[in-house]
This record gives sequence, C-alpha cells and structure tokens, in this order.
Amino acid sequence: MNGRVVAEVSIVPVGTAEASISQYVAASIEVLEDRKDLIYRLTPMGTVIEGPLNKVLEAIQAMHEIPFAKGALRVVTNIKIDDRRDKPSTMSSKLQSVLKLHPSIKT
Amino acid sequence: MNGRVVAEVSIVPVGTAEASISQYVAASIEVLEDRKDLIYRLTPMGTVIEGPLNKVLEAIQAMHEIPFAKGALRVVTNIKIDDRRDKPSTMSSKLQSVLKLHPSIKT
Amino acid sequence: MNGRVVAEVSIVPVGTAEASISQYVAASIEVLEDRKDLIYRLTPMGTVIEGPLNKVLEAIQAMHEIPFAKGALRVVTNIKIDDRRDKPSTMSSKLQSVLKLHPSIKT
Amino acid sequence: MNGRVVAEVSIVPVGTAEASISQYVAASIEVLEDRKDLIYRLTPMGTVIEGPLNKVLEAIQAMHEIPFAKGALRVVTNIKIDDRRDKPSTMSSKLQSVLKLHPSIKT
Repeated sequence: MNGRVVAEVSIVPVGTAEASISQYVAASIEVLEDRKDLIYRLTPMGTVIEGPLNKVLEAIQAMHEIPFAKGALRVVTNIKIDDRRDKPSTMSSKLQSVLKLHPSIKT
Repeated sequence: MNGRVVAEVSIVPVGTAEASISQYVAASIEVLEDRKDLIYRLTPMGTVIEGPLNKVLEAIQAMHEIPFAKGALRVVTNIKIDDRRDKPSTMSSKLQSVLKLHPSIKT
Repeated sequence: MNGRVVAEVSIVPVGTAEASISQYVAASIEVLEDRKDLIYRLTPMGTVIEGPLNKVLEAIQAMHEIPFAKGALRVVTNIKIDDRRDKPSTMSSKLQSVLKLHPSIKT
Repeated sequence: MNGRVVAEVSIVPVGTAEASISQYVAASIEVLEDRKDLIYRLTPMGTVIEGPLNKVLEAIQAMHEIPFAKGALRVVTNIKIDDRRDKPSTMSSKLQSVLKLHPSIKT
C-alpha cells in the first residue's frame, strides 16, 4: 500500500441561472492550493487530485462547499477514486503506463 | 439547509479473477447497518445513501475499504452527491417529486 | 454474451434558474416508455435501464435531448454501463445475487 | 448550438486477474485515432473526447468493446457528457475559461 490515491472530482451547481460554471470551478480549485499533501491538475472535465484518501476526501468536501458559499442552492458532485495498493500509483505513473504502450497518445 | 444529502456509491474491485462482485457489494453494505444517521437502499447499479454529508462520506470511506479487506488489490469507487439546501431533499422526496408529475413510472 | 446490459443515467440541466429538476427527469423518462426492448426503473439518483447496449445508448441520447427541448442551454449527463458477457446479467439478477448473500438489505 | 460536446469516458474491465488495466486503456484509445471528427486527450483518470455527440457515443461504444476483444468478461464504462448549446464549448475553451479567472492552475 502506497497510501496515495488518484481521484477525480467534478462539481456542478444546479439552478444558477447561467450556463457558465467556470467561476465556481476556479474558486473550488483554490481550496487545493494550501493542501501540502495533495497534487492536482485541471482537465476539461474535472479536477484530478492525488494524495492520501482521507485528505483527498476532506479537500473534496471543502470544494463542494464553494458553490454554496457563492450562492448556489443545489450542488451535484461526482467523485471517482482509483485506489491501488499492490504498488504505488500516481497521476504521473498512470499516464506513463499507458504512454509506454502507446507513446503517441496526447495527454 | 436541511443538513441531509442523497448520495450514490458504487465500488468496483479490479483484478479479482472473477467477474462477479456481489460478495463485495453485500459486505460493503453491512457497513451501513450500524450507522444510525443514515438510510440506504440497494439499486441494480449502486447503493443510495441519505444522511448528513460528513456521515455519508465517512460511511463510503469505510465501504471502500471492504474489498481490500477481502483481498482486492485495487478498487475504483464512484460517488455522486446531490446536496440541495433550499429545501429538504430525501430519497423519498426526490422520487415523489417525479412521480407527482408522472405517476406511472416504475421505481 | 447475453446481449443485454444494465446502465444508469442521470441528466442534469445547468443554468436553469430553479434548483428543481424533477420536470426534466419526468419528461426524459417518457422517452423510455415506447422502447419495447428496454426495461427501466427510477431511483432517487437516476434511471436504471436494461436492454441491448445500442438500444440503451440510443434511448439515453434521446433522453439527453429533453432538457434542451424544454429550454435548457447546457446539460451534463452521466452514464454508467455494466456489461457482463460470461452470463446473463439483468437489473433483477444483479439485485438477487446480493440479496442471496444478505437477505435483509433494503432495495 | 455548436454541434460539439466534450465528454469523458473511463472503461474498467472486471475480473481480469491483474490490477493493471493500462493495456486495455492503450488499446481502447487506438479506436479514436481514425475518427476525423474527434479530438481527444488522455488524463490520469480517463479519456476526454470532443466532437459531435453521436460520433462521440459511437466511438465510446467501439472503445467499450476493446476489453472484451482482449478477453475481459465484464466491463464497467463510465461516461460523462457536457453539452452546451448557448455557445461553442470545447476542451480548450473549457480550460481557458477557468484559467482566465485563475491563471496559476495547473492543467
């Protein structure tokens, strides 16, 4: 067990009158900046976070609060956790293991 | 804010030799039985849980450990949280609000 | 291969002014009523659909259009497909295989 | 309506004896290479695809078949579709709209 998981979160405010949600995304990612145990990366569809499972879930819970703090009445949050314990698995190693087989894939 | 969310979790062990995962599902649901703050319901695609957000996430984290305890080396867990704070929202009220509009829908 | 999959879909309109989405859910489920190859069931967190994979995806694509027809400008749709080909797997058999191990679980 | 959506797919074979799934991921992404209408990008947690909705779903259905062709007996596929029709929305524009608010976010 390496003690670190790779997770992805996407947080969608519902009933916000506007179709754009980038301001909520930008604010929720700020939550991650002070968390020393975590590394993260924005993708077009969510935020990928790597760290100890309990720290990751704690951060996601804080991110989930952001749209409410900005006035949203309802938030739908999707989380996927990939937790591998037979060997270390990181954001970087996960990409590398695919790229080793298929070097031309765009990341 | 009503203090309760409705969430869904599905937990998939990876690399288990067998395509069946019902033993992992059954064991992970046992985790929910002693949690007084939570109510839950099994669906064909996951487990729906209602309760305070932090209690729900705590229970899901415990459920996520079950396949490891049974020998799995990797677990992929998907969580969706629906958190509505303008009025109470429960498993039951969510179904009722759709059924009121369309009473013949099977649940 | 049994030719049938079990899937779950949840469709969230974004930027709709109201936090309630039950009218969209009710309308999207109507799409399923005429599809003879499919069976379905509403849960508090989505709609579970069973049928041949291509028919299921075709129906989900039609469901995904409903909020736009009702005025939504953006729709986020989550789909999970469970496709088992070593033996038939249905909404009912999936529940039964867990209930056999743990008969008291609420469904 | 711009006619293009941004989607994310992750495909998990179940019951494969090994915890590693990179060979399945690498092979499923090859499916995307010949599709002229689509652009895509690998992330640590899935594959993000941009293109017309029906082409995206068609490609995902082909990707979903790959693990079966390689011997898997069960595959769990998660798809998220973000479909915005008030203005064009692409992988690139989605990232840019967040980066404009918060230039230091890592992507």
